Amino acid sequence: MSAQQMHTPTADGVARAARKIADLLPKTPLLEAEIGGARIWLKAESLQPIGSFKIRGAWHRMSDLSEAERARGVVGVSSGNHAQGVAWAAQRLGITATIVMPIDAPQVKIDATRSYGAGVVLYDRPGGEDRDEVARRLIGQSGATMVHAFADPWVIEGQGSMGLEIAAQMAARGFDGPTRIVCPCGGGGMTAGLALACPEAAIVPVEPEGWDDVKRSLAAGEILTVGKDAPTTACDALQTPATRPINFAVLQARVPFGLMVTAAEVRAAQRWAFATLHLVLEPGGAAALAAALAGKVDLDGRTAIVLSGGNTDSAAFAKVLSSQD
Amino acid sequence: MSAQQMHTPTADGVARAARKIADLLPKTPLLEAEIGGARIWLKAESLQPIGSFKIRGAWHRMSDLSEAERARGVVGVSSGNHAQGVAWAAQRLGITATIVMPIDAPQVKIDATRSYGAGVVLYDRPGGEDRDEVARRLIGQSGATMVHAFADPWVIEGQGSMGLEIAAQMAARGFDGPTRIVCPCGGGGMTAGLALACPEAAIVPVEPEGWDDVKRSLAAGEILTVGKDAPTTACDALQTPATRPINFAVLQARVPFGLMVTAAEVRAAQRWAFATLHLVLEPGGAAALAAALAGKVDLDGRTAIVLSGGNTDSAAFAKVLSSQD
Repeated sequence: MSAQQMHTPTADGVARAARKIADLLPKTPLLEAEIGGARIWLKAESLQPIGSFKIRGAWHRMSDLSEAERARGVVGVSSGNHAQGVAWAAQRLGITATIVMPIDAPQVKIDATRSYGAGVVLYDRPGGEDRDEVARRLIGQSGATMVHAFADPWVIEGQGSMGLEIAAQMAARGFDGPTRIVCPCGGGGMTAGLALACPEAAIVPVEPEGWDDVKRSLAAGEILTVGKDAPTTACDALQTPATRPINFAVLQARVPFGLMVTAAEVRAAQRWAFATLHLVLEPGGAAALAAALAGKVDLDGRTAIVLSGGNTDSAAFAKVLSSQD
Repeated sequence: MSAQQMHTPTADGVARAARKIADLLPKTPLLEAEIGGARIWLKAESLQPIGSFKIRGAWHRMSDLSEAERARGVVGVSSGNHAQGVAWAAQRLGITATIVMPIDAPQVKIDATRSYGAGVVLYDRPGGEDRDEVARRLIGQSGATMVHAFADPWVIEGQGSMGLEIAAQMAARGFDGPTRIVCPCGGGGMTAGLALACPEAAIVPVEPEGWDDVKRSLAAGEILTVGKDAPTTACDALQTPATRPINFAVLQARVPFGLMVTAAEVRAAQRWAFATLHLVLEPGGAAALAAALAGKVDLDGRTAIVLSGGNTDSAAFAKVLSSQD
């Protein structure tokens, strides 16, 4: 299959991605815990080799590239987790990768991306520089393939593979699959993938305060964009201005509503994950858990919560641990 | 089998413990990473429901108690992780548990033990009160069964079940079992269990500075005790004055030497686990990793390192993250 022939993401594609990923990576653990007396299932994607689920979509996409495409390299655009996914997959596949990252991305994410051998081009996010424009310029020079962080059928299918793992892990412990999957949401790649993977589960995307464009888009029935006056957020991984039609088409069919969490709710979730699960979560990775802990989600014993990433720097994490709100 | 009939711990007993634990708990993940270019395997026992491996031995021991023994309850003695293991198992099995804990144990461990419904009796460790004496007094009153933290054949076999999991998880990824298992060591329960579980692997126990009685005992050929002038250590889980004959008999047959790590090496390992694995490790849980990172262990691509626990409080962990040594 050529990556130049874009396709619509499908449940079959999710299943194919899941088989490829099962050959590559051990399943991340599905932990069990309780919130308010209800059993919850926690998918610890923060324990992926790159510290987030983004390894899934990047691998599914890039391992499907033809030899000719691989020779021309790839370009990714990311605040950090997708960057690491593309860089990790590129190193394994022997592909040259260039990643366009915001100049204000967490330093740990920039360093990690470089550590996998990828080139990093920084753009001025705070100053409003258009990252897609930077990417297009790079692609124009090299003929490289763009690996979009969420608006790509392979990436959507790859992220969805997590849903099949959750269902299989629950089945192995004698439970029917999830009734509900609560997931952090940036551009809607994982959300769309989970919707395809688990047609019988409700999918609940969670966004940080001020960056709840998917929630508002679902309510409005059309793609809305984050306002120019959006507040800063610690959830750098979820700081996406708008979803795209390829994602929104899936979401509109399957996802009735989204949720929003405050910065304090996210910090409380990071502290809970530290104390209860002994996991390090980055703010964006804790957003779905934050919604559950804040009582914004019905918990029925078969609700799964995605802990999507753990890439945070030690000063920021120490500050969260010390905060009381 | 009655718990009153003490037996010698055996490899068959480890296999039986492993089957019981497989029915009870999902396998903790065996993570892969690199140190100095060498592949290492990391057994994340910090992700057990109680935050440490101690759930294994407590379960194997207590699920073998007769109905009459269960009715009389159990007494445990522990600085905190074994306490939680006994309390967790007691709650599941409907057994009354009383745990003797040092007054200077981390508050998170005391609180967690109580949260499982166990009674907690504090003893004056800093003042030199004899914890075994306190336990004997409680047992004299109730006829309860003592569940020792390490000098117990069931507990040794239960902790050893981890070794069989490591071997199975490596096999599932196409590797022969571990050539070497590096483990944190307090009284030598886990060390003895791993020695029985994995007869073809070298077992390397690691102790904190000043509390290296097992290392010294192995060198001397007899059980030595930690000196009265032993320094304080952050590794509360490894703060055991001496091993016992039931453990030392296994160790002498299988374990040629032990290692010692400094407090700074332990902190560096906690920071590495935070940044690289996104795991929260308590100081004692990071001791084996500390030895590997400090270059004290030969790493041959099939070396497994036990990350034994993650029960630390947020202030202590924030301080470690902020330290630079």
